[in-house]
Amino acid sequence: MATKLASSSNSILLQNPNRKPNSIFNTAAVPHFSAKIKPFSIRCAATSTTPVTPIQAQTPDTDGRVFNFAAGPATLPAHVIKKAQGELYDWHGSGMSVMEMSHRGKEFLSIIQKAESDLRALLNIPEDYAVLFLQGGATTQFAAIPLNLCERDDSVDYLVTGSWGDKAFKEAQKFCKPKVIWSGKSEKYTKIPSFHGLEQSPDAKYLHICANETIHGVEFKDYPTPKNGLLIADMSSNFCSKPVDVTKFGLIYAGAQKNVGPSGVTIVIVRKDLIGNAQGITPVMLDYKIHADNNSLYNTPPCFCIYMCGLVFEDLLAQGGLEEVEKKNKKKADLLYNAIDESNGFFRCPVEKSVRSLMNVPFTLEKSDLETEFIKEAAKEKMVALKGHRSVGGMRASIYNAMPLAGVEQLVAFMKDFQARHA
Amino acid sequence: MATKLASSSNSILLQNPNRKPNSIFNTAAVPHFSAKIKPFSIRCAATSTTPVTPIQAQTPDTDGRVFNFAAGPATLPAHVIKKAQGELYDWHGSGMSVMEMSHRGKEFLSIIQKAESDLRALLNIPEDYAVLFLQGGATTQFAAIPLNLCERDDSVDYLVTGSWGDKAFKEAQKFCKPKVIWSGKSEKYTKIPSFHGLEQSPDAKYLHICANETIHGVEFKDYPTPKNGLLIADMSSNFCSKPVDVTKFGLIYAGAQKNVGPSGVTIVIVRKDLIGNAQGITPVMLDYKIHADNNSLYNTPPCFCIYMCGLVFEDLLAQGGLEEVEKKNKKKADLLYNAIDESNGFFRCPVEKSVRSLMNVPFTLEKSDLETEFIKEAAKEKMVALKGHRSVGGMRASIYNAMPLAGVEQLVAFMKDFQARHA
Repeated sequence: MATKLASSSNSILLQNPNRKPNSIFNTAAVPHFSAKIKPFSIRCAATSTTPVTPIQAQTPDTDGRVFNFAAGPATLPAHVIKKAQGELYDWHGSGMSVMEMSHRGKEFLSIIQKAESDLRALLNIPEDYAVLFLQGGATTQFAAIPLNLCERDDSVDYLVTGSWGDKAFKEAQKFCKPKVIWSGKSEKYTKIPSFHGLEQSPDAKYLHICANETIHGVEFKDYPTPKNGLLIADMSSNFCSKPVDVTKFGLIYAGAQKNVGPSGVTIVIVRKDLIGNAQGITPVMLDYKIHADNNSLYNTPPCFCIYMCGLVFEDLLAQGGLEEVEKKNKKKADLLYNAIDESNGFFRCPVEKSVRSLMNVPFTLEKSDLETEFIKEAAKEKMVALKGHRSVGGMRASIYNAMPLAGVEQLVAFMKDFQARHA
Repeated sequence: MATKLASSSNSILLQNPNRKPNSIFNTAAVPHFSAKIKPFSIRCAATSTTPVTPIQAQTPDTDGRVFNFAAGPATLPAHVIKKAQGELYDWHGSGMSVMEMSHRGKEFLSIIQKAESDLRALLNIPEDYAVLFLQGGATTQFAAIPLNLCERDDSVDYLVTGSWGDKAFKEAQKFCKPKVIWSGKSEKYTKIPSFHGLEQSPDAKYLHICANETIHGVEFKDYPTPKNGLLIADMSSNFCSKPVDVTKFGLIYAGAQKNVGPSGVTIVIVRKDLIGNAQGITPVMLDYKIHADNNSLYNTPPCFCIYMCGLVFEDLLAQGGLEEVEKKNKKKADLLYNAIDESNGFFRCPVEKSVRSLMNVPFTLEKSDLETEFIKEAAKEKMVALKGHRSVGGMRASIYNAMPLAGVEQLVAFMKDFQARHA
């Protein structure tokens, strides 16, 4: 049996003095939802006068909760789930669940408009970018991007820093002429290249990157400026984990199920002048113009998933925005990487230090035959889903926005204890 | 003000003596999930010994609930939402929400396998059909079907009985050579043709129908046997509302958000020998082979939506299966259509009597200027979303599986009262 571990309180994270939980509900009506770009949050329309309870920055009742290090779907803020639970049966006195609402009714319209408005505030998304809530995951975007932005014979460039970038490249082969201009495969996807040495295709329409590789744990710390064409980024696993200058990108996309919600909704942020040139063979559901012209309501969207993302966006704003979120993420990642680096090789992280992900921390044991035991013992201590991806083995701790500092502290304490017993 | 209406108890619907709520949990372990085709329900694996509470056939606490006649997303069974609410924060002692679970973990695997198994039992789906849980709604299938089942030059036939069949036809034009062999457009989509007189294309790969047109309220009461090719049906708005002989179809598809769950998941039931011939331009997410080979887990599926469908399937089995469900649906529809037909023309339903939908009941007022008042007064009486689709006007009452008899009784009582005051 492992010795009992020091248990930290979640309140370290949640009682952030920078939070202003009351100040976010100071806008009475739903404004034109893409008109203003500043960090504020709007109130949803309700069908009754039942008061709307803001998400409080209080310590949640975490009895029975595990620390869930899964790579996605992933842990969500406990107080956000509690809020969703409280209003699941009857949303704001409407007499129905969000799951039951017509997507064209005033209740759901207020939800999706607020979600978009809050996301625009979080990422400071300019008015000349559309925000789309779509289905099908990043994998659908692997096809939609070349279908919308290219003709069949257009050249495009892919910078492949892990499995997801590789999948995106392979799918694009069906719809245009993609080229891998750099791949980290021979070095097991542990690096990101210097941008100066990169040679792009002369007529490339875009350069595609995966901003954070979930499986391999490599993350772009700054972004290349393409010599030719647009910069396109899959941000699925670091979306809303830190500020991003959206204007550097032609298109950003992200499956929600890492940092901002449950699986089932994919967010696309795309410069509006790029919309409207889809190839003739583009399925209507993959055509950005259809979705942009209809404010993501061409057909029935994944309403409940969008609602959950909205609750998370509201919470991220209440935390003080993405600058504050990034500080917390850095603190958690530093704690974990330091524990690995200071273990005298007992724990190892293969990723080059300068590009280690703040979100996904892969690591191995020097004595690899102990890895199964490590994962099993951790699960007994309520730290679950620490097994590495089947393609790379070892362990992986995904420490997204919603992973409390206490979860990382407990993991680090457990690692030290495990090492002491097995060194 | 309308006079106070007689209010029926939901227990009429819910205390069905044919239900055997305890007999459905008699299988201890999760079996090989497509091996047996009989009406039973399996228990989900849990990570603790917390007892699993079956969905009880008891009268729910419906305080504050409205009767929601929306066409989709639509009303769900109140007791199913209550169950989801109860376990939203901590599913079966796992220490996490279903929204947070890895789609590759044992907890979610047990959820998706049970959902598939229960659906197979409900519809008696043979082993040689695959069941896929996908994203993107029926609209995505409008493209996926020709992409998977045809070459570019193949002929296919569409029988167009409403807006959805028309949309399916138009999308197919991108990927094969579809032909409309019958259209009800000139008669405002109020009929379904006799099958004997239909002339199909000689080499048609399939005949596509929309089994129930949500907007126009016309429903196939039996199904054509194509002279050439397969029968393909969009069953989005009458899925699991009555028994269906799956073996008559090459493929059945349905968005969940009418009868079986929230929006965000689409169910495809496809004969296995039809899988594996997708056109080269098929996005990987639209390729049935990818999803069939990976048991709908190629990428992250819409986990929470699938979980909700699973709860609904379990409930439909507990009600005694689809024969019992159909009886209730017929009773509700008869009540409403009779009220329309017996109003001496005050209320009118344009649809030919023999093909009136059990699910979506469009109707108008002889005095059309009263329609706005009708909808407004009904909403005051907690009967909401009765406005007809913007393309046809008037009213529409969607009375899916989860609409209690009491809701239809209250609507009919209100209609009679409204007529008495305005005749």
